[in-house]
Amino acid sequence: MLDKSKQLTASLSLVNDRLLFEGSVEGNSSVAIDYIPPFGDNLGYTSLELMLLSLSSCVGTALLVLLRRGGKTIEKFSIKSEGIRREVHPTAFEEIHLNIEIKAANLTSPEFEKALTLIENICPVWYMIKGSTKVVFHYKIED
Amino acid sequence: MLDKSKQLTASLSLVNDRLLFEGSVEGNSSVAIDYIPPFGDNLGYTSLELMLLSLSSCVGTALLVLLRRGGKTIEKFSIKSEGIRREVHPTAFEEIHLNIEIKAANLTSPEFEKALTLIENICPVWYMIKGSTKVVFHYKIED
Repeated sequence: MLDKSKQLTASLSLVNDRLLFEGSVEGNSSVAIDYIPPFGDNLGYTSLELMLLSLSSCVGTALLVLLRRGGKTIEKFSIKSEGIRREVHPTAFEEIHLNIEIKAANLTSPEFEKALTLIENICPVWYMIKGSTKVVFHYKIED
Repeated sequence: MLDKSKQLTASLSLVNDRLLFEGSVEGNSSVAIDYIPPFGDNLGYTSLELMLLSLSSCVGTALLVLLRRGGKTIEKFSIKSEGIRREVHPTAFEEIHLNIEIKAANLTSPEFEKALTLIENICPVWYMIKGSTKVVFHYKIED
């Protein structure tokens, strides 16, 4: 069996005569992936939406591991992400905004901001895109 | 409504007391996202597996649009992707291999290789990671 700490795999197959793909990794439900009209038909996630989920889950994972290590119990956690595309090709994200909402007893803003600075060294997806894309964090700590 | 050619959004919520997230984009089935043990429980895609699907679908979309513009009818198309992680933190991919299989009447290797060189300027996800990650293409044209 694959050691996922070293190597990961995924499969993609075209499933119609346009741009609808089925993406999968063994053991998981498949993901419908498509592109926007006129080339595609909006029948699934776009590649860049999967990139947003990849980045936000990576950031979320790193933050939760760090905060729990600091003794915090997380009651609620969510990230809404928003990517702004370049106007020229390739129409990559020039900026991604991550809007984080968190509820955890006794969590202070300085503690959360410290965690945000620390994850830069442990979040692989952020590391992979930071040469090309500015990532901006916004956060709200719920009572 | 959001103009997806300019701006994209996605949502992520923590759904257990470990690292299981539900990721979603309006209009699509949600995606289970988790991390590997000991921190997570392997109950969904990892962030880096979503990155592989993001990259491979972006490359696939760009290739199919180009080849169809050149008059090719695509009969079969798939990409198996494999990402090799760094051994130090952040454990990002240092290399991604994309194994492409395609069936299209009268498609020659030189035509396919030309398409591979052209997509570099139109595939946003590849553009976003190429400063940090080497992407290696392998392909097989089926008869």
